[in-house]
Formats: sequence, structure tokens, C-alpha cells
Amino acid sequence: MAIDVYWGSGSAYSWRVLLALEYKRLPYRSHLLQFSKQEHKSPQILALNFRGRVPIIKDGDYVCFESLAILYYLDLKYPEPPIFGRTPEEAGVIMRVICEYQSYAEEPLMKIVRAFFFRQHAGRRDELAAAMHAVASEARSIEARLSKSDWIVGESFSAADIVIFPGIQVLLRALAKPEAEELSSRFLPLEVNYPAIAAWIARVERLPGYERTYPPHWRADAGGAHRAG
Amino acid sequence: MAIDVYWGSGSAYSWRVLLALEYKRLPYRSHLLQFSKQEHKSPQILALNFRGRVPIIKDGDYVCFESLAILYYLDLKYPEPPIFGRTPEEAGVIMRVICEYQSYAEEPLMKIVRAFFFRQHAGRRDELAAAMHAVASEARSIEARLSKSDWIVGESFSAADIVIFPGIQVLLRALAKPEAEELSSRFLPLEVNYPAIAAWIARVERLPGYERTYPPHWRADAGGAHRAG
Repeated sequence: MAIDVYWGSGSAYSWRVLLALEYKRLPYRSHLLQFSKQEHKSPQILALNFRGRVPIIKDGDYVCFESLAILYYLDLKYPEPPIFGRTPEEAGVIMRVICEYQSYAEEPLMKIVRAFFFRQHAGRRDELAAAMHAVASEARSIEARLSKSDWIVGESFSAADIVIFPGIQVLLRALAKPEAEELSSRFLPLEVNYPAIAAWIARVERLPGYERTYPPHWRADAGGAHRAG
Repeated sequence: MAIDVYWGSGSAYSWRVLLALEYKRLPYRSHLLQFSKQEHKSPQILALNFRGRVPIIKDGDYVCFESLAILYYLDLKYPEPPIFGRTPEEAGVIMRVICEYQSYAEEPLMKIVRAFFFRQHAGRRDELAAAMHAVASEARSIEARLSKSDWIVGESFSAADIVIFPGIQVLLRALAKPEAEELSSRFLPLEVNYPAIAAWIARVERLPGYERTYPPHWRADAGGAHRAG
């Protein structure tokens, strides 16, 4: 039976779940919600997650939300190929790198993303520069990992890649906006400043099924300003 | 072989790891670091975790840090008794509740804790009231869970209890300070406002080994102001 997935285009958290489903080659029914129509606050969605937040999956009668919890559930329920490693030691490193990303990179990264996706950057130059500084520092750690291996942890694509990849993609989209030019100059071009991350992005983009995970409205309107970026 | 644990007294994150080790009845060597002496920034610790943050465990040659990653590693390496449930469905709910705590409760809770532990509350009345409002809202969700079950998820003590319990304990300690009286009035007394959480705290406190996890400097000096609360 296919897994129902409720998600939003351009949501980094949603993107993680699609990447995991494609990597595990699990059949799923896609329910793309329109943030602009407040579909994530509909009674049907609130009945699944009272916070009205996506992603949400429904696997038979079982409902799960919060992207990391969904990845964890999927890996236990459908273990092959694993996304949390094959040994306790490998699993610990994968989870540790995810926790480090969440603790030290995600908040400043999402601050930058929201500022430019929602046109709230005016008058926040110092605050956004400080956020960029924190993100750049964490990106150097990831760059160092990727300069020694094809994937962020170990020799395989894992939940660490799945958690971090969409975050970097939304950051790059935010920094590509003309009004972000000043801020982006210390991060871009990625190929120059973070060549191993650039190569890793290309590697993820070549994974089977990747195209089906790409935010559809990014494709429809390259460069435009949107409710969800 | 015993697991080495590097931790700090009054660190909610450290407390989680001690609770897990005691619950799993794992032998461990305790290395209590003095934050006031900057022992968490010593070369020995920085060699284990370049961020100089605790908790850290060393299990043979294997090093892990970030508290959730340590819990996850310990559960895979030493599965009995489990702290992430016995089925993928249960594991998913445990992780989901942990993610919800981290996403919606932890930041405002720690803001209040730091403000009173480090005497930085002056002039921040509105900001701290807003944080308290957010924490109270999340506490109501936890209260609802605990009014239906002895533990936060399912019928057993789990990583959800382990992650959330130290946070609530440090919050209660912060709110017990005289200067927090105005803020605490809408949360305390716990027995009146959150009776199921109060009963759950007493339940955790009766777990075997709990006393060994209790922050030693809290016992040594009840009510005093400390560097780490």
C-alpha cells in the first residue's frame, strides 16, 4: 500500500521526506499542499497534525510528522537501503551530524532564507551578516567532510545528506535573489568557496528519482518571488 | 568495558545521557567537568569535540556527542531495555515528540533558564513572558499526554521522557529563584497547574539510579546562584 505524503513546494523539511521515499524506492501518493491557499491549515491536515505543519506521512492508519521522525520511522519500517547506517557507530555519527546541523546551522540558515523568500531583509544587514557568518562556519565543516568522502557520513547516501541537502538548496535559492547580492558574495560562487559541497550537490542531483523531489514551483518560475520562496 | 562520560552539573543535555545510562544499567566512568574552570574547553575535551560542548561519551575508541545522538547510539548498541520503543510505529512517535519538544519548547525554555541562571533577566519582562507563554502551551500538550499514560509515549519510560525531563527540571529550578516570582506565577505550583507532569516527575525520581544523575551542585547548595544554575 502506498504511503500518503502531505508536503509543500519549497519546504526544506518536506523535501527531506521525498528524498527518503525516492531513495528507498517506496511507493507513495503525493499530496502537494498550496501554502498560498492555506491548505496546510485545512481541517483534514489539522486532524493529522494539530500544528498544521508539513511534512506529514500516513502509512496505512499510522500518521507521523516532524521530518526527522518520519525519516527514522521509514528507516525502521523499510530498512533497505538504510539511511541511518548499518552499525550503531555509524548511526551515532549520522545522528550526531544531523543534530549539529540542527543546533548550529539551521536557525541562522532559515533566518536568511525567510528574510529573502518573504522580502523581510530590509534594515537587517548586520543581523543577516551574522547569520551568514554562522552558516559559513558550519559549511566549512561540511566541506571538510565532503572533501574526504562522497557523502556527508561514511560511504553511502544517508539521513545526514537528506537532512542537510534541502537546507543548502533553499539557501542557494535565497542567495540567488538580486537583493541578496551583497550577502551572497562571501558564500558564492559555491564552486570556488565550497567545491566539495558543489560536487556533492551535483551527486545528489544524479540520484534516481531526484527530479521528482524538486520543488515544482521552482521549475515553473525560475527566479520569481513566491510565498514559499 | 565502562563507557566514559564527560558532563557538566546542571546541563540538561548532560543529564539526559546519565538517565539513559542508569536506565540501561550500563557501567560508566563519570567525568564531571567544572564549567567555572572552563574544563569543557580543555585540550582533552576539544580533541573529542572541537566545539567544547558536553555531553560526550567514549565507548572504547568510539566517541559520540550531541545528546540525542548519544541516546540513539546507546539504544542501538545496548538495546535492552529499549528507549526508542519496540516497533517502528512507537519509535516514530517517540522521535516525533522529541522533535516537537526541540522545535517548539526548548528554545523558549532555555531562554528563561539562562536568563535566571546567569542573572540576565533584567529589562526583558515582555520577552521572557512571551517565552513562558510558549513553554506553557507546550507543557499543556505534555500534560495531556501524561494524563492518559504514566510516560510521555506509550507504556514505558523512553527517550521522550529522557529528553524532556531535564528540561523541565532546569526550568523549575530557574523559576524557583526569587527574581523569577512574577514569571513563575502562571506556571507554578506545578501540582495545581500541571498535576500529571508533577506526578510524572515524582515517577522519574523513583527510577533506580536516579539519585546518581541529579546535578551534584544543586544538592550541595540548594537555592544559590551558580555559573551553571
